[in-house]
Amino acid sequence: MKVAIVGGTGYGAVELIRLLNNHPHVTVEKILSHSSSGTKLSEVYPHLSDIIDLEMDALDVEALSKQVDLVFFATPSNISKDYIPKFFELGIRCIDLSGDFRLEDEAEYRLYYEDSLADEKYIKEAVYGLPEINKEKIKDTKILANPGCYPTATLLGLLPAFKHDLVEQDNIIIDAKTGVSGAGRGLSLNVHFSEMNENFKAYKLGSHKHIPEIEQELTTAAGETIQVTFTPHIVPMTRGIMSTIYVNLKEHHSSEEIISLYQKYYKDHPFVRVRNEGIIPSTREVYGSNYCDIGIFSDERTGKLTIVSVIDNLVKGASGQAIQNMNLMCGWDETTGITQLPIYP
Amino acid sequence: MKVAIVGGTGYGAVELIRLLNNHPHVTVEKILSHSSSGTKLSEVYPHLSDIIDLEMDALDVEALSKQVDLVFFATPSNISKDYIPKFFELGIRCIDLSGDFRLEDEAEYRLYYEDSLADEKYIKEAVYGLPEINKEKIKDTKILANPGCYPTATLLGLLPAFKHDLVEQDNIIIDAKTGVSGAGRGLSLNVHFSEMNENFKAYKLGSHKHIPEIEQELTTAAGETIQVTFTPHIVPMTRGIMSTIYVNLKEHHSSEEIISLYQKYYKDHPFVRVRNEGIIPSTREVYGSNYCDIGIFSDERTGKLTIVSVIDNLVKGASGQAIQNMNLMCGWDETTGITQLPIYP
Amino acid sequence: MKVAIVGGTGYGAVELIRLLNNHPHVTVEKILSHSSSGTKLSEVYPHLSDIIDLEMDALDVEALSKQVDLVFFATPSNISKDYIPKFFELGIRCIDLSGDFRLEDEAEYRLYYEDSLADEKYIKEAVYGLPEINKEKIKDTKILANPGCYPTATLLGLLPAFKHDLVEQDNIIIDAKTGVSGAGRGLSLNVHFSEMNENFKAYKLGSHKHIPEIEQELTTAAGETIQVTFTPHIVPMTRGIMSTIYVNLKEHHSSEEIISLYQKYYKDHPFVRVRNEGIIPSTREVYGSNYCDIGIFSDERTGKLTIVSVIDNLVKGASGQAIQNMNLMCGWDETTGITQLPIYP
Amino acid sequence: MKVAIVGGTGYGAVELIRLLNNHPHVTVEKILSHSSSGTKLSEVYPHLSDIIDLEMDALDVEALSKQVDLVFFATPSNISKDYIPKFFELGIRCIDLSGDFRLEDEAEYRLYYEDSLADEKYIKEAVYGLPEINKEKIKDTKILANPGCYPTATLLGLLPAFKHDLVEQDNIIIDAKTGVSGAGRGLSLNVHFSEMNENFKAYKLGSHKHIPEIEQELTTAAGETIQVTFTPHIVPMTRGIMSTIYVNLKEHHSSEEIISLYQKYYKDHPFVRVRNEGIIPSTREVYGSNYCDIGIFSDERTGKLTIVSVIDNLVKGASGQAIQNMNLMCGWDETTGITQLPIYP
Repeated sequence: MKVAIVGGTGYGAVELIRLLNNHPHVTVEKILSHSSSGTKLSEVYPHLSDIIDLEMDALDVEALSKQVDLVFFATPSNISKDYIPKFFELGIRCIDLSGDFRLEDEAEYRLYYEDSLADEKYIKEAVYGLPEINKEKIKDTKILANPGCYPTATLLGLLPAFKHDLVEQDNIIIDAKTGVSGAGRGLSLNVHFSEMNENFKAYKLGSHKHIPEIEQELTTAAGETIQVTFTPHIVPMTRGIMSTIYVNLKEHHSSEEIISLYQKYYKDHPFVRVRNEGIIPSTREVYGSNYCDIGIFSDERTGKLTIVSVIDNLVKGASGQAIQNMNLMCGWDETTGITQLPIYP
Repeated sequence: MKVAIVGGTGYGAVELIRLLNNHPHVTVEKILSHSSSGTKLSEVYPHLSDIIDLEMDALDVEALSKQVDLVFFATPSNISKDYIPKFFELGIRCIDLSGDFRLEDEAEYRLYYEDSLADEKYIKEAVYGLPEINKEKIKDTKILANPGCYPTATLLGLLPAFKHDLVEQDNIIIDAKTGVSGAGRGLSLNVHFSEMNENFKAYKLGSHKHIPEIEQELTTAAGETIQVTFTPHIVPMTRGIMSTIYVNLKEHHSSEEIISLYQKYYKDHPFVRVRNEGIIPSTREVYGSNYCDIGIFSDERTGKLTIVSVIDNLVKGASGQAIQNMNLMCGWDETTGITQLPIYP
Repeated sequence: MKVAIVGGTGYGAVELIRLLNNHPHVTVEKILSHSSSGTKLSEVYPHLSDIIDLEMDALDVEALSKQVDLVFFATPSNISKDYIPKFFELGIRCIDLSGDFRLEDEAEYRLYYEDSLADEKYIKEAVYGLPEINKEKIKDTKILANPGCYPTATLLGLLPAFKHDLVEQDNIIIDAKTGVSGAGRGLSLNVHFSEMNENFKAYKLGSHKHIPEIEQELTTAAGETIQVTFTPHIVPMTRGIMSTIYVNLKEHHSSEEIISLYQKYYKDHPFVRVRNEGIIPSTREVYGSNYCDIGIFSDERTGKLTIVSVIDNLVKGASGQAIQNMNLMCGWDETTGITQLPIYP
Repeated sequence: MKVAIVGGTGYGAVELIRLLNNHPHVTVEKILSHSSSGTKLSEVYPHLSDIIDLEMDALDVEALSKQVDLVFFATPSNISKDYIPKFFELGIRCIDLSGDFRLEDEAEYRLYYEDSLADEKYIKEAVYGLPEINKEKIKDTKILANPGCYPTATLLGLLPAFKHDLVEQDNIIIDAKTGVSGAGRGLSLNVHFSEMNENFKAYKLGSHKHIPEIEQELTTAAGETIQVTFTPHIVPMTRGIMSTIYVNLKEHHSSEEIISLYQKYYKDHPFVRVRNEGIIPSTREVYGSNYCDIGIFSDERTGKLTIVSVIDNLVKGASGQAIQNMNLMCGWDETTGITQLPIYP
């Protein structure tokens, strides 16, 4: 199958290229970039020298729809919403790594994305691509809204507890930490090496785009409106997300009981690994891989359940999950091409 | 004044040496180390070559009490509790950077420190050395229990809210992050460079020694029993602590109101800086200095107050605060010798 | 084909496991570890949880020789030399990632490895496994001496110049830099996170084990005795080696001419990439991959040729090259299973 | 004494502010910045909040000359050359941290700085401010050309050998490594965190501005034309420079002999520390301090002398040395205000 990647100079695109290079059924036919049209990919990314010799082009929907079967969008916010409807009408499936098709609520989108939502028709066609909860819907969709990095780690950590109705509705705290690549390749003083190295920062308290996304999916799972407190932080490292989640249990269950329930919940989901009691995963344990690893601690003393969920933000948090979704959309085994082990150390 | 430092090869000691080198009233007369007795300090720490030429000795309480006026203990847990009483009886003041004299409750100490508490007489003599709340008591004590690094950041972030009775007793979440130097100089796979670099870890969920210390001081401040949920994490950097604290406000106050209250609370405390609205400090902003910087975000939507408090774990979280305490015990200005600006970048 | 890995808790072994997991023709049947016999691999390396469930065993040559076809040694110095001869006599091929079979000269081995060389018979059987120069010999050997990390980067950078007789015999300077994983998993203050982070060190000036290895191979290539000045340094990062090499050209050639000659030299060697004029590779450009990237600068002003050669020390510098050698020994395409792209960023 | 700093938002300026804050005889009266005129310093650098409340101004030579006694220029290349002559004529002393007044040769300046040299009159007035060789001249100058970071580390490492005529004129290799702060605060993909972290790069082979500066000073010291091969590299850390220098000895001397000679050479220079035999300094050992630490290895086998010289690029490599020069120019002890110990760890 031939695919195209729009947003060719960003980290999402280059990670798609890395992972698709090992995929047995897919060829990356075209790489599109508005800013680098006419440039060879290896000039922007010398690590691809002598391996991938594509020249980047500007996006031409009509032309592209005749050349490829599926298009990945690895673009900033508020871009894909203008193009994916066109591809949809031309019968081309799209996987959107940006947030344009994740939210269903116009007001929320407007508030957090500062733009108007895509036309309702296409929002309804879109499926939120977290394979561990939406596998069947994903198989049939033509517009796949690939989840955000923080929501992926957070939802995989929280959903089993919500599905089993273990958790109180209030006092859900998500203290999240990301490696710097989550900020992308755009230059900014915030992620200038000398400012970010040997530094640890909190940012966007109460205003991060991923808040409505997490709340939307938790609300669906819980069947009642869920609000969360979410604080993202930046860690002086390139890759990795940890979401440390605090909830109140409706009634006490031991760590062991909850772990057992989580392990059962994820037993048919090859990319989620729930650690045994007393073991908490660190971000390095999923580095470069599509795994989400989860650790559980239930504290009898305080009644709080603490869930630690780690992913590689560029793999399970973006491009790896996009390929997992593509596999499902194409009827292939969901692990095809993304079984790389974590790189350690 | 002449002082001695016990625990000469650890990071607490070497940071005391760095800071005291600029102190106008103090000479480091002796450095004691059980493991490195007979070794020159510069052999262990070549960065002190040609500057400090002391040879380390084993500790001899009698002899030392004739040579110095004050002793710093920068030792692991469960050591100073055997020596400080002896110095006390000989009239020598001690500042203990370890946790041996911080807790008043035998059972808690036994649970978290796995040893018996020091004799009650000396525990009663000891003062918990957080100058921002205990200044007067510190001036008169002969046994100073220097606070832990996490408790320092956390208590300075929480106490004004408790003192003003703004905070609900339940659902206090402290998500704390430390640089690796907090783990000390002892070798362990956990802090082996290749394991810790490009990695982010949570550890000791529900079992860290600093939990009872934080709870003891909050309970005193609140006048009612306070329990907290505390999760420490390690960041791949050498120095810095951030404590991200989540509490429920009894009633809503804006960020601005709370900031104003905090700024007033700390107006006579030169080492605490409360940022204005919308500004959250990062750990680098206090690197190498004795400052504690605090950012405040009150979220009307969720009713949660988020407090971000940062310190340098080795300065305000250990050796700098110890010197601040020494200054108070000696009747000097509390900032003497510790006015170094943060190193940036 | 079934293989075993001896030295199962070290970084060489765990990198073999990562790479072999994607190899179409090979199964890792046994992992041997003296220190961790009886332990499950995932207890030592949680990132392998739910993927590889082998329990490590102590090495039993007889038994192992009936279970596997080929044995990798990823052991410290002076261990494989006692075992590989036994496997050889039992007809089992061995690939040795340690230095035990690299040197031919007893005196040199004794000087740098502080032990006696393996029996001459086996040293003669051993082939130095740098595929880019020894491909034919590698195909037939039963004892493969996998090159050291520094020698791999250095020799690939220097050999074309020597083969074309461009370089003066004297004044060969190799200033090499390695990521910390090169020091292995053994604990030491040198690679304790807080000591090594934000730090850059030179070490083992004039005494590193890789000096005689580099000189032996250059001497063979040049047909005359070559001595080098070699200084290794440690960089505060986990992976990557850069060898910056300075030589005097016998007569001046432009960068372009030398690059052209190098590109021709390596045209049939898929893992060596020679950059075009003005482009110097950085270590990140080969991270996690088996590539060796080379940059060339010929300075007319000084007559010096500077060669910059980068590899991932754990892949092309150890386990990836070992698999490349295995592929050749087994008659497979040399790239089988090791075509992963560099991870970037 | 009142001073001004031009270039207030750069790292050189902020490091001057840090160090001068502890200087007993100096007040920073004005901070000038073209780009941030009208902004409070603490808005650009929140770590200075509540400590330094200056607002930055645009530079007005006339006005400033009435307000301060001395001006530091911490500006990019080709700026101070237009302003310092004006201050000179107004009787105001200037210390220039940029390279505008370091080179005496018009052609060299034009080649490396791509602009015309300042008027000859002022170039002649300027003194190259390496206190360890030019102390007397520095005391009398009104235009102080503060050395570059690489030249400082390199010259302090090489000059004693040249002064004692130990070194051959040819084959001088300087393999230098810097922390990222050397690249300044200007945004660039090269020093974007995700690109530079876990990465090691060589850059500007044969074309770095510091080449003519090093050659000029070595030529003066040697009394004959000296050319060097100089390769700078970037290390993924914020601060620190190591210069690893390779020269041929005219005749062999042991490490011990050369160390002894170096220690004698620097015995009256408090900021240079020459390690004893077998000990090589690392960059961390001078972090945040004005020290230059030197390690020596003379290899009898190859006849090569290897010199390892480390500094903090922002202190001895820039702002600390500028203050050392100011102290000399003002008749104060050269260590005044810059005796901070290295921060370790």
